[in-house]
Amino acid sequence: MTEVSALGEFGLIQRLTQRFSTQDDSTIKGVGDDAAVLDAGKQKVVVSTDLLVEGIHFDMMYTPLKHLGYKAVVVNLSDIYAMNARPKHITVSLAISSRFTVEALEEIYEGILHACKVYNVDLVGGDTTSSLKGLIISVTAVGYANEEKIVYRNGAKVGDLIAVSGDLGAAYLGLQLLEREKRIFLEDQNITPDLESEKYLVGRQLKPEARKDIIDFFEEMNLQPTAMIDVSDGISSDILHICSQSKVGCQIYEDEIPIVEETAERALTFNLDPTTCAMNGGEDYELLFTIDEADETKLVDVPGISIIGKIVEKEEGCLLVTKGGNRVAITAQGWNHFSSSF
Amino acid sequence: MTEVSALGEFGLIQRLTQRFSTQDDSTIKGVGDDAAVLDAGKQKVVVSTDLLVEGIHFDMMYTPLKHLGYKAVVVNLSDIYAMNARPKHITVSLAISSRFTVEALEEIYEGILHACKVYNVDLVGGDTTSSLKGLIISVTAVGYANEEKIVYRNGAKVGDLIAVSGDLGAAYLGLQLLEREKRIFLEDQNITPDLESEKYLVGRQLKPEARKDIIDFFEEMNLQPTAMIDVSDGISSDILHICSQSKVGCQIYEDEIPIVEETAERALTFNLDPTTCAMNGGEDYELLFTIDEADETKLVDVPGISIIGKIVEKEEGCLLVTKGGNRVAITAQGWNHFSSSF
Repeated sequence: MTEVSALGEFGLIQRLTQRFSTQDDSTIKGVGDDAAVLDAGKQKVVVSTDLLVEGIHFDMMYTPLKHLGYKAVVVNLSDIYAMNARPKHITVSLAISSRFTVEALEEIYEGILHACKVYNVDLVGGDTTSSLKGLIISVTAVGYANEEKIVYRNGAKVGDLIAVSGDLGAAYLGLQLLEREKRIFLEDQNITPDLESEKYLVGRQLKPEARKDIIDFFEEMNLQPTAMIDVSDGISSDILHICSQSKVGCQIYEDEIPIVEETAERALTFNLDPTTCAMNGGEDYELLFTIDEADETKLVDVPGISIIGKIVEKEEGCLLVTKGGNRVAITAQGWNHFSSSF
Repeated sequence: MTEVSALGEFGLIQRLTQRFSTQDDSTIKGVGDDAAVLDAGKQKVVVSTDLLVEGIHFDMMYTPLKHLGYKAVVVNLSDIYAMNARPKHITVSLAISSRFTVEALEEIYEGILHACKVYNVDLVGGDTTSSLKGLIISVTAVGYANEEKIVYRNGAKVGDLIAVSGDLGAAYLGLQLLEREKRIFLEDQNITPDLESEKYLVGRQLKPEARKDIIDFFEEMNLQPTAMIDVSDGISSDILHICSQSKVGCQIYEDEIPIVEETAERALTFNLDPTTCAMNGGEDYELLFTIDEADETKLVDVPGISIIGKIVEKEEGCLLVTKGGNRVAITAQGWNHFSSSF
């Protein structure tokens, strides 16, 4: 194993970035100068940033470094897609304590590289430095969109339908499984965790994907959402963002919330309500969006997109209509650690 | 004092960002959605990022929080100016341990706001989260330039003159002073540090400025540098970047290196060679650049810009010509902590 100090500053940059060739014509200058240079052409530039901290956002005991690098990129790309824009470039800054070797850093970059390839984005800059404790990753993503295509959180209007991609709650249950196995392992290190049968839930937590395909679908169908947000904190919190910024209310129908069988079953073994996991679990990185009523036909029977509610007058509030027909006010629960993106 | 948790996630964002109104027409959407939206028009987009870590890049014992926020922004703007571009937007991500109160965060943002005003940049996004230990600040700056105006590190050619703005070594001596006072204070807490007479050196360390005025000067004089870099690691390291990327050598004349009296005197009291401080001290955030010989007249007698050397054939190497006429190979010393920006 190689100490980071053995390579020297520029040796390290060289080693970590040598395999990142630029892929996109809009990358004029990537790594290697004071700043990257990008070609915006006639499009608008969309920028998003996130900071991931060891012990807060991820646990090194069960997070493979490669997945960590992948996820750090994906969560930022997800924010760009949530604007109905296309990410093209990322910068990645890392702070590491002395316990990380060059090989460990390379593992993280392996995941970053994989994300760059899957999503066709270029690594164009970064900063790698020491930390007193643990690992910190800061990613900034830059994307582009034609102005009239950009979808904000404030465009939902009364009568719009509320839709969400994929399924919800799985990432949260994946986290519960990993935390449980960690506790068991810490109590008795002879027990090797077996999560083979839980691949789906654990995968949703450790290696989420951003929904580029949904943005492609919108383009194909010529469908322009009226508002959109990515599901990072859980749809409770996320729909409240849309409603507050759009100055509207909403009704979400509990029986339309997409929850797969693995999630529902696993929730019950943890004595958790599957709907609560779906509403407040977070980290699903699905897209929650609203569309004009007239566009409903474009979404009917589309696999992987569920219509889960509708936008109503602000005075009606933000309500969950339960399976039993009760109306419950939606509140942002936030199972999560303190974290505020803006 | 207010615990961060008392405000809640969105209350905190609101409190920290409410005073940042957007100033620039190219900021279409700043804080408040999944990502910021910027208008690139016909210009190229320039992006730079840096990560500052408590205990590595700054010491809370002698760094006022307001200055820290200011400096974190300025070091990134400096990178954008070093491309001969104009910064317009920044994102700021913070990770803080529980010992930081809302008021402490507000102090940091006060400095960020001040930098935004001084340099006419808009805060357009960020992320604020917990850390297990200490304070971490990640800043990304976005700027613009016409393609033909952008200055890279690789354009220096044989015969070009090497110039630098301002003076060198002061920030490094400011750091030595602060470290000395810290040691004294830790030994006897009844001694209050008095750095009033050292304002210049300490100010260069704690509150550096980015050289926007030099970019304005280039524009006014219609002067296009052939290569440029900002002086973050010391001109030894920085001129080697230009030479290696431009595939040339250089000669730097020791007696042309701009060192003010305060720096020279203070260096001697620390038993340091002033030239070594200027060459390897770093954190001056001046601009080191090369110009075509034919442009020399545009720089002669310009206050605050010094011609310190010339570009030669690669085979001649990178040399410091000392006051005594000796030629010494320039090496990147890096007094600093491990830190690699790319």
